[in-house]
Amino acid sequence: MKIAQVSPLMESCPPQLYGGTERVVSYLTEELVRQGHEVTLFASGDSQTGATLRAACDRALRLDPECKDPLPHYLVLLNQVARTADLFDIVHFHADYLHFPLFAPRWSKTLTTTHGRMDLPDYAPLFREFPMMPLVSISDAQRLPMPSANWCGTVYHGLPSDLYTPGLGNGGYLAFIGRISPEKGPDKAVEIARRAGVPLKIAAKVDKVDLEYYNGKIKRLLKTPGVEFIGEIGESEKREFLRNAAALLFPIDWPEPFGLVVIEAMANGTPVVALRRGAVPEVVEDGVTGLVVDTVDEAVAAVPKALSLDRSAVRRRFEQRFTVERMAGDYIALYGEVLRRGSMNAVVSGGRASNQRGAA
Amino acid sequence: MKIAQVSPLMESCPPQLYGGTERVVSYLTEELVRQGHEVTLFASGDSQTGATLRAACDRALRLDPECKDPLPHYLVLLNQVARTADLFDIVHFHADYLHFPLFAPRWSKTLTTTHGRMDLPDYAPLFREFPMMPLVSISDAQRLPMPSANWCGTVYHGLPSDLYTPGLGNGGYLAFIGRISPEKGPDKAVEIARRAGVPLKIAAKVDKVDLEYYNGKIKRLLKTPGVEFIGEIGESEKREFLRNAAALLFPIDWPEPFGLVVIEAMANGTPVVALRRGAVPEVVEDGVTGLVVDTVDEAVAAVPKALSLDRSAVRRRFEQRFTVERMAGDYIALYGEVLRRGSMNAVVSGGRASNQRGAA
Repeated sequence: MKIAQVSPLMESCPPQLYGGTERVVSYLTEELVRQGHEVTLFASGDSQTGATLRAACDRALRLDPECKDPLPHYLVLLNQVARTADLFDIVHFHADYLHFPLFAPRWSKTLTTTHGRMDLPDYAPLFREFPMMPLVSISDAQRLPMPSANWCGTVYHGLPSDLYTPGLGNGGYLAFIGRISPEKGPDKAVEIARRAGVPLKIAAKVDKVDLEYYNGKIKRLLKTPGVEFIGEIGESEKREFLRNAAALLFPIDWPEPFGLVVIEAMANGTPVVALRRGAVPEVVEDGVTGLVVDTVDEAVAAVPKALSLDRSAVRRRFEQRFTVERMAGDYIALYGEVLRRGSMNAVVSGGRASNQRGAA
Repeated sequence: MKIAQVSPLMESCPPQLYGGTERVVSYLTEELVRQGHEVTLFASGDSQTGATLRAACDRALRLDPECKDPLPHYLVLLNQVARTADLFDIVHFHADYLHFPLFAPRWSKTLTTTHGRMDLPDYAPLFREFPMMPLVSISDAQRLPMPSANWCGTVYHGLPSDLYTPGLGNGGYLAFIGRISPEKGPDKAVEIARRAGVPLKIAAKVDKVDLEYYNGKIKRLLKTPGVEFIGEIGESEKREFLRNAAALLFPIDWPEPFGLVVIEAMANGTPVVALRRGAVPEVVEDGVTGLVVDTVDEAVAAVPKALSLDRSAVRRRFEQRFTVERMAGDYIALYGEVLRRGSMNAVVSGGRASNQRGAA
């Protein structure tokens, strides 16, 4: 197939440091190339890919000190995609919803993966206005606030099987990785580790928007004995960080739509202690790949249980459920499904429907 | 003419409180209606207009506690405009650049007024990608960072002549009105008033993004003897506030693209003491409608001179230069100009150019 992947521009594909969506887009893109598809990747110019790269900006916007407003770059991106859309069988969008007005008349050659939370009230009118746009959720839980949107399927994220190999988890610490923000629960991670009596290492970035939270609430917690803050880490450091961790703490306080770091931990054989929010019960199999708990108290009690889980079984479940081959296969199936819907629609309506915008 | 006006959605048209762009869109819309044009206003649902109102959202987004992310509402707005674009001779956009990809193939029936600052580096690639979009600046100074963009003209803002009547300016105070943000210079206003020995009244809103600046730098200055902070005010309070002011202080520290409050003051006969930044020298006639100065020291010295200016001359210059009739006339001329360019383009290229996107 001729496939366009449209990535966010905040990070490169793959990201140099943190960045979930661009990482997934990168894995998917490279796997589609490996499977022999003709793939064009629309992404920041510092991306690395085996696909044809179309760059809307020179550098990942988050790391570009010149970038004050990302939006203009996304408009350039959209125009690049629109100008070349005829060259592709399918255009797969990963960068929110900015393309909806532009691609509504061509919905039947698009697929949009919703990578973020869906529980903002602002989204209801958006999905009402664009009922034709085919959507993919990254967990079933992600759909809950917007059950009647045009969902075509759920595709869990996947990682290259050889990206990580099972580690021994003998570093003697619990791991926390992500952003320092209230919804990721770094404060809870500190409490759980402290009360469980196991050292904690925190690998995390602090976004500008979270500086107040970091300075006001988290900075002093990082002085807790046994807690070490190692800042934002790149891919190679993350490998060591995760494979040596006894367990990952995932004490989220928001409807996490997937939780990429959870399957990254699993790929290293590292079990997860996670709060039951969002996609957690779908991704973590309680008692097999980790422990799913409802409170901080339960999380403290779950730590020793997590440490006793069979790390090779954790890795095995990763290989069964969360590889990039499985993810790419799921998406290829959905591309076919969207194209079939589009052509059926064209037959039924004599081609008019494929050009129609949402009804007034 | 059949004219669509596309307003931002942050405030209603007109705004209930602060809000420059929506205020200008509202004045323009009502004047075009008065002149007999068929006008459709795309704006928030709580807008008041004699035009046909198309509402993309129920309420002005800034005042809607439910609104966390304005962008989805703008996508709904864009789709509403796109679906009905054939009904209009011209579509006049006032809400940034989000419509560029969607309307690039139909540029010849659009006009975009740039209401904000143009000096972000992010705009250069945007205007390179969309060289066909016809633009209007709100001052010549606004164009400086982007001289090669597709400027069709400069149209200064205008106000209904009867919105304000000349006041006596005998309230015994200097006025500051706007946002509490570093670029508006509230700190300088306090210093100028204090050193000039004239009381100062500050009517201003504090945006979330400016809270740190307000708490850290401004709050304590507001305790300066002679300084009174009256918060955000509505239209009727603004009238009294401006007509009773001895002069307006406009000590901006950014390339202000226009400065609506300056002509609001002039409409009340109130002279302005302004720092020479952005559009100030175009809008304020030094020695006639106010004093244009380069430093705070000069501003202090200018205050007594401003108080001695002839307030009826200030009002007279407003009537000559900044009424809504003049603004609407300028825009009508530019609508005609864009339509002529579009049809010439269509003749020259056999219609292809009018559908073309920017070259690759």
